[in-house]
Amino acid sequence: MHRSKKTGLFITLEGGEGAGKTTQLSRLVERLEHDGLPVYRTREPGGTPAAEALRNLLLFGDERFCWQAEIMAHMAARADHLAQAIQPALAEGRIVVCDRFHDSTWAYQGYGVGEARPEVLDFIRSLRRLVGGEPDVTLWLDLPCELALQRVVQRGGRLDRYEGQEMRFHQRVREGFQAVARHDPSRIMKIDASQPVDVVQDHLYAVVRDRLAGLAA
Amino acid sequence: MHRSKKTGLFITLEGGEGAGKTTQLSRLVERLEHDGLPVYRTREPGGTPAAEALRNLLLFGDERFCWQAEIMAHMAARADHLAQAIQPALAEGRIVVCDRFHDSTWAYQGYGVGEARPEVLDFIRSLRRLVGGEPDVTLWLDLPCELALQRVVQRGGRLDRYEGQEMRFHQRVREGFQAVARHDPSRIMKIDASQPVDVVQDHLYAVVRDRLAGLAA
Repeated sequence: MHRSKKTGLFITLEGGEGAGKTTQLSRLVERLEHDGLPVYRTREPGGTPAAEALRNLLLFGDERFCWQAEIMAHMAARADHLAQAIQPALAEGRIVVCDRFHDSTWAYQGYGVGEARPEVLDFIRSLRRLVGGEPDVTLWLDLPCELALQRVVQRGGRLDRYEGQEMRFHQRVREGFQAVARHDPSRIMKIDASQPVDVVQDHLYAVVRDRLAGLAA
Repeated sequence: MHRSKKTGLFITLEGGEGAGKTTQLSRLVERLEHDGLPVYRTREPGGTPAAEALRNLLLFGDERFCWQAEIMAHMAARADHLAQAIQPALAEGRIVVCDRFHDSTWAYQGYGVGEARPEVLDFIRSLRRLVGGEPDVTLWLDLPCELALQRVVQRGGRLDRYEGQEMRFHQRVREGFQAVARHDPSRIMKIDASQPVDVVQDHLYAVVRDRLAGLAA
């Protein structure tokens, strides 16, 4: 699952619930398209028919997966998404903007569900290596959990399996993102999502334009 | 996913389509239960609610998985089956008899779908190591493909994704079983499934009783 470094740019947006990922992603895509750039917008889990079928099972199904199976099913969806959507779009030279990716598995299944147990983190690491497809840049919208959950409640609508978890779960998820950001600072850009929407957006856009300038240079 | 060697016995039945696995498995279970032995009968893909949901996607869904995703989804189902059904039954000291397991992934996804390409076989090997749960004994019902497909056609009914493949596919699957049997002769017992049903059954039963005697000794 390697791809030529000459093509496209693979951007992922990460963060806990209520951090504003969906809003920010829509605006970012609009601005990049307004600049005349070819953008492919997608999300995880999902992004292809097979991966969306897995998404439905994982987020809304009644069946309870053991932790290994939950992680592997997420990774199976990701493998399909990479092979059948992301890599082809990158090969066409597009900017792929993806809502959640590998770091969400790390934060949610590793830290949230798996409570950062070493055997869970090792399992995720091994599968991540097998699946591959690391992003060029990851924009992590960080927000204190209390503020994030206030936003989710105000938003209303149906909560998925992860949104409905207790506060401690969401704190562990945030710790997961913090851990991966410390480990991979050249890829992951932490952005303070408690700032006004426009300020956050300008920050995201500036990071992406900067990376694009780097590619063109 | 390790278990104490003091408990249970894990038997898998393997083979291509039409080799008579289901019939033989039913008879074997009957005979072992008749002997007063505690038996847990199961099958793959499936065996738990989450794994059955994945089975439906994989065998009967409209979505086409890329090869990596197909293999990972099978392995996710297996991980759930092991953690939530097979290992608990073994811990209770039961004889687990499972219709298809790791070797079917090797034969079907590795040789059949993947045409024994090295990257596919390496991918399966890595995941198999991660998932673990190797059987104590594997009974491989071997049959020439021409004879096997005659039987499948005579049986009638709805064909799943794999049964409906061309002859060359089934030949590759058989080669996959041959390869793994050569590689692991102490675990895999090859049984000539072109013999009469009763002869095959007596052979299976003798192998299992022999292993049980070995455990008791």
